[in-house]
Amino acid sequence: MPLGQRAGDKSDSRYCGVEVLDFPAGDGLPAVLTHSLSSAFDFLLAPLVDPEYRPTPGAVLPVAASDLVLSPSQWSSHIVGKISEWIDLDSEDEQLRLDSELTLKQEIAWATHLSLQACVIPPPKRSTCANYARVVNNILQGLTNMQLWLRIPLEKSESMDEDRGKVNNNNPTSETVDSWEWWNSFRLLCEHSSQLYVALDILSSLPSMNSLGRWFGEPVRAAILQTDAFLTNARGYPCLSKRHQTLLTGFFNHSVQVIISGRSNHNVSQVSEGVLSGDENHTEDTPTRHALSPYLEYMAYLYQRMDPLPEQERFEINYRDFLQSPLQPLMDNLEAQTYETFEKDTVKYTQYQRAIAKALVDKVSEDEVSTTRTVLMVVGAGRGPLVRASLQAAEETGRKLKVYAVEKNPNAVITLHSLIKLEGWESMVTIISSDMRCWDAPEKADILVSELLGSFGDNELSPECLDGAQRFLKPDGISIPSSYTSFVQPVTASKLHNDIKAHKDIAHFETAYVVKLHRVARLAPPQEVFSFTHPNFSPKVSNQRYTKLQFELPQDTGSCLVHGFAGYFDAVLYKDVHLGIEPNTCTPNMFSWFPIFFPLRKPIYVPSESPIEVHFWRCCGATKVSVVSIAVDPLINESCNGPESHVISC
Amino acid sequence: MPLGQRAGDKSDSRYCGVEVLDFPAGDGLPAVLTHSLSSAFDFLLAPLVDPEYRPTPGAVLPVAASDLVLSPSQWSSHIVGKISEWIDLDSEDEQLRLDSELTLKQEIAWATHLSLQACVIPPPKRSTCANYARVVNNILQGLTNMQLWLRIPLEKSESMDEDRGKVNNNNPTSETVDSWEWWNSFRLLCEHSSQLYVALDILSSLPSMNSLGRWFGEPVRAAILQTDAFLTNARGYPCLSKRHQTLLTGFFNHSVQVIISGRSNHNVSQVSEGVLSGDENHTEDTPTRHALSPYLEYMAYLYQRMDPLPEQERFEINYRDFLQSPLQPLMDNLEAQTYETFEKDTVKYTQYQRAIAKALVDKVSEDEVSTTRTVLMVVGAGRGPLVRASLQAAEETGRKLKVYAVEKNPNAVITLHSLIKLEGWESMVTIISSDMRCWDAPEKADILVSELLGSFGDNELSPECLDGAQRFLKPDGISIPSSYTSFVQPVTASKLHNDIKAHKDIAHFETAYVVKLHRVARLAPPQEVFSFTHPNFSPKVSNQRYTKLQFELPQDTGSCLVHGFAGYFDAVLYKDVHLGIEPNTCTPNMFSWFPIFFPLRKPIYVPSESPIEVHFWRCCGATKVSVVSIAVDPLINESCNGPESHVISC
Repeated sequence: MPLGQRAGDKSDSRYCGVEVLDFPAGDGLPAVLTHSLSSAFDFLLAPLVDPEYRPTPGAVLPVAASDLVLSPSQWSSHIVGKISEWIDLDSEDEQLRLDSELTLKQEIAWATHLSLQACVIPPPKRSTCANYARVVNNILQGLTNMQLWLRIPLEKSESMDEDRGKVNNNNPTSETVDSWEWWNSFRLLCEHSSQLYVALDILSSLPSMNSLGRWFGEPVRAAILQTDAFLTNARGYPCLSKRHQTLLTGFFNHSVQVIISGRSNHNVSQVSEGVLSGDENHTEDTPTRHALSPYLEYMAYLYQRMDPLPEQERFEINYRDFLQSPLQPLMDNLEAQTYETFEKDTVKYTQYQRAIAKALVDKVSEDEVSTTRTVLMVVGAGRGPLVRASLQAAEETGRKLKVYAVEKNPNAVITLHSLIKLEGWESMVTIISSDMRCWDAPEKADILVSELLGSFGDNELSPECLDGAQRFLKPDGISIPSSYTSFVQPVTASKLHNDIKAHKDIAHFETAYVVKLHRVARLAPPQEVFSFTHPNFSPKVSNQRYTKLQFELPQDTGSCLVHGFAGYFDAVLYKDVHLGIEPNTCTPNMFSWFPIFFPLRKPIYVPSESPIEVHFWRCCGATKVSVVSIAVDPLINESCNGPESHVISC
Repeated sequence: MPLGQRAGDKSDSRYCGVEVLDFPAGDGLPAVLTHSLSSAFDFLLAPLVDPEYRPTPGAVLPVAASDLVLSPSQWSSHIVGKISEWIDLDSEDEQLRLDSELTLKQEIAWATHLSLQACVIPPPKRSTCANYARVVNNILQGLTNMQLWLRIPLEKSESMDEDRGKVNNNNPTSETVDSWEWWNSFRLLCEHSSQLYVALDILSSLPSMNSLGRWFGEPVRAAILQTDAFLTNARGYPCLSKRHQTLLTGFFNHSVQVIISGRSNHNVSQVSEGVLSGDENHTEDTPTRHALSPYLEYMAYLYQRMDPLPEQERFEINYRDFLQSPLQPLMDNLEAQTYETFEKDTVKYTQYQRAIAKALVDKVSEDEVSTTRTVLMVVGAGRGPLVRASLQAAEETGRKLKVYAVEKNPNAVITLHSLIKLEGWESMVTIISSDMRCWDAPEKADILVSELLGSFGDNELSPECLDGAQRFLKPDGISIPSSYTSFVQPVTASKLHNDIKAHKDIAHFETAYVVKLHRVARLAPPQEVFSFTHPNFSPKVSNQRYTKLQFELPQDTGSCLVHGFAGYFDAVLYKDVHLGIEPNTCTPNMFSWFPIFFPLRKPIYVPSESPIEVHFWRCCGATKVSVVSIAVDPLINESCNGPESHVISC
């Protein structure tokens, strides 16, 4: 039974499982399952094979239950397999190593036979796990549907400030433990397999928030919450520390399912429960209450206490981490539906109207109002939203306006004509059915209004378009927007990396994507990349750019893997009126732009406390602009991976 | 409003549209749409642009309605665009040709802007339509979602027997018209585009059933039913001839939507309708009844009159025309779910039980019953269904049985052990966890039972497996099955061809597929291909085969396109007990096998009354058996396409 209803949330984090600690011998499994399901757990993490078993020639595998004991849909919906924990593939003991490999393969084969959705494989027993990872990688090649969840304890010992000198001196006694490193080595040896996930064991103490943050970019499928991690409230019930609560809420928001594990430390009596619910009659019939029910109830409480998803978030939920190619309105004509969607972004057009109003007031003083008519050109008028904003700004400020609406898409021009007729704007608006690059304007404009910005600002070639269009702007004319700046920050984003990798070609790694970033870890604050100002009448205008950025990760983050860079923009429309999606300054409730994502062909490992240096180029050819080339270098002496450099087309 | 509810049928053929004959000028379109929807039509086939329009520089396209007049979802759900019928891209008049090309492109661009699902393009005006097809092919390359439906009148003049001599003498006066030929040339020039479909105009007279049958393998999306095609029943209402009814039912079963077109010829008064329904009060408020409502009501009657889909058909509906790779149980281990599904086919196991019972009675006479114990081996026992059938046959006939159950999948062996224990069969059944190819049997068997047949009989390598296994069969032993034969027939199957082509490689054309054939035209009765008999103790056993088949299409079919061959099998289990899927002799209610489909890399055009010659090879190498190689040749002198030959792996 799901933890609760949360409007718009259909993710797996609604489900809560329970770990079966003892081997359910004989036909024990169906009984345990029935008991757990009737106690409102959704699934079991259960051992599949007797942990006493060691491979013997001719023996039949001593499974917990024959496949006939549960139905195929019970197996696949309610059982996550737990691979025997004794296996140790990197042991010095060869027999143990060989037994481990054979048993692991047999158990996975049995789980595949049962069509389980996932199996949890035990944590590496030691820091070197090469043989374990090799065998798992080999198994992963043969799996079609089943996932493997590598169990990892969530722990990281913090290096004290005074210890840092010693660490750099390679003092082995001050070695820090960071279980993320185990995961990272394992996943690298498994070649970023898209069927390998993490199940994190949540213990009573937690690492720093910055270090926890890394996991939100990793493929965490389950948080195995140990009963030992719970505190006890005044009434004797289990509860979690504030930090644990924050972490769990984060997991709920990132589709991570909870599994309760351990022995009960909170023997909350059933009778008092019955009294509380005023339901005494049923105590006799009620089957024994599940020992871990109080923990499940606390989880349900935490889940239900979360704020409902805001409406815009709910609308965008299906776009989370979904890679889209940026629109290319310069090359392709947009469809009516696309215009319709973007025209609904009232926040954006309100900002434009404010900016145009301010420009009109600056251009025409109060005493010129009756004699002066401002010429305004909308370049890329689409179906007319900026024409409307301009006329509204004129009305609001009492300024007279003459509008030229320039649009290259003949289908949008048809709509523009209908709109002008419908609104009775014929005397104020002239429609120009033409590409702004070819148009020969009959007069020069006071104000040039455009909305050519992409998620990274210049990536839909706004600079090139506006440099061309300023030939019909008066020398003292105003461009709205008057400037814009792009921003980037490094991210961990294993899902995006795997989705791009699934195309099995280089081309998809040399593309920038528009994407509602969700399962990502933002590793450092965004920094400015390129800026453009309009109009620019300088004789030496160039839209080529180069920038070198250096990102410092917070000290307590630990090491991490960078899969790419998230990109944003901020635009000054006019004076103090701005518009943008840079996280720290973004315009609220605007939905026209998702961030952009620049992937790295090869993710870069960044050791703890090393800065990242990244180079960005914007290159212009005669017929083509490659908006971003990237080179990244983790600045470490003993470089374990060389710098990465490649071109990304937007 | 759908024509009716039919259990399990979720296809588009539930929807009925209406063609708008006049240009709805001004804001006429929303009114026409509202009226049609309130009269229970589901969508309009409507002109998008004033048919009087001819391209003029600078003119705004005179569209029927601005995109703002309907919502995006109304446009895409309720409007199929009708491209202007005057366009003639193969005219001798160059100006008309150029105007046609420009208008066609503008109208399609407008329809794309509106995100329509489909546009109907007019029928070719003459038998050569190369320029029309070239331009359409060019347009299709640029479409991402929208379909184009080429309108084709459903007509074929039958050549009389006495005329045939003349036709062969190329007498132009006796030339036959077959509109399928127009479609075929057009589609070939459009390179089998998967976004090009047919809309068939149904007229008052219909071609022969065999010729109609061809269309069920073609991508027909709509049947445009002319009011002129209707007859009048005794009460003055429209109805259709029996042959029209059969055709329409066929269309309903193949997801073809109906569009009613034409002027009303049946002015059934609304008042009499009101009287019939006893609903006189509402006549005043009721908006004018749609002139074509009586035809829609007749369609709904025809739709609702159809038999409900049988349960098995309903279960299999999602498998229709869905290409699956054949199982390779010899190479891969099946999963529990797969065993579970196949074990449910009681018809199959009942046939096995009958065959085994007959064999037991033949082996052991009544007076030997108490003294003789028959040794039976199940090779490929899986989770035990044939073991059960064997024991039931023994019980039924009173024969004593010793069963060896040989199975190579260790996971299935686990289940077999549980089953034997559960059923108390330990004294009768010995489980052998081994590949039958490696097993060294302790004694020889009287009866060897297996179920290794694929959809084409031998394609899962039953011959090779049983030749190996017969080493532990007594010289007078019985194999069940004792023989099997494969069958093929040529088919038109444009959907399957396009689905395979979508992979953009040759490998997918060199694969045989298991598929529930639905949108196919079966062009000639199936013929036998290869037979195998077991046991075969002859010293010169070879499973290599070669066969040449010649298919004659019924005389009145006309020409057709062959996309590949449908394959089936029939097996003799023992004496008169058989099992199979060959359409004429298939075992009813058995669901373990869908037909197999052998695709041709390049579909073959077969002119009217030409036979097709096909060569089939079964080739065995040391480590690999290529089950089918095909060569096809349409036996015509002026061969317009050469023979096709390639290897297909099963």
